[in-house]
Amino acid sequence: MASHPLAGLLGKLNHVAIATPDLKKSSDFYKNLGAKVSEAVPQKEHGVYTVFVELPNSKIELLHPFGEKSPIQAFLNKNKDGGMHHICIEVRDINEAVSAVKDKGIRTLGEKPKIGAHGKPVMFLHPKDCGGVLFELEQE
Amino acid sequence: MASHPLAGLLGKLNHVAIATPDLKKSSDFYKNLGAKVSEAVPQKEHGVYTVFVELPNSKIELLHPFGEKSPIQAFLNKNKDGGMHHICIEVRDINEAVSAVKDKGIRTLGEKPKIGAHGKPVMFLHPKDCGGVLFELEQE
Repeated sequence: MASHPLAGLLGKLNHVAIATPDLKKSSDFYKNLGAKVSEAVPQKEHGVYTVFVELPNSKIELLHPFGEKSPIQAFLNKNKDGGMHHICIEVRDINEAVSAVKDKGIRTLGEKPKIGAHGKPVMFLHPKDCGGVLFELEQE
Repeated sequence: MASHPLAGLLGKLNHVAIATPDLKKSSDFYKNLGAKVSEAVPQKEHGVYTVFVELPNSKIELLHPFGEKSPIQAFLNKNKDGGMHHICIEVRDINEAVSAVKDKGIRTLGEKPKIGAHGKPVMFLHPKDCGGVLFELEQE
């Protein structure tokens, strides 16, 4: 079954992350369109607040800076209204996936996977090696 | 069942669109990661070539300029490496959805839905009214 998409490295689109300068306003935007929207959760170790918007097949993750050195502050300085920040794709085994992408010449941001907002190991890939897109790989 | 996500306006995440200056290189990037990647299709009436990357639950749409007045050329001038361009969400009825978003004060790009790359009616929403994100609504 080598042609099945799951046979490849890329699994489900877990979420699209959107950085926002106003978490309440952004949460209300999606609530107002009838979506199920979570409460804001501070992710101290990641320097962000996260809010999840549930869609029938995937999620939107809203990100807002937490603390002084948030990794999304520079993005918001450039994109004052907010905007799409990254795409998260599921992989079966994060260590195998990291090894595979490195073999293909794709750089990772950091050496080892970290525990992400869902409590699962994640790794970000270098946008310069991914067509200008910041990809997060998350273990299923 | 008013709390069910499908009861709201927003349906499935149909695709995330990524603009690219090099369609072959971007297609190869996803093929190289084991994804099923379509051939490039010129969409003359939209001024783009499209390539679809299948994920188990959604799609990535690669966009590359077609012709002299492509609507994505300005985006690529600003984002030389390419990047995330828009998010497409499914709605049950495009006319009802357009009417509903206008009632909520969200501007649309154009007055009437057009036929999109999938042959279904679509409408884009103004990023200034959507937290800096370009949303495409597509009828299921």
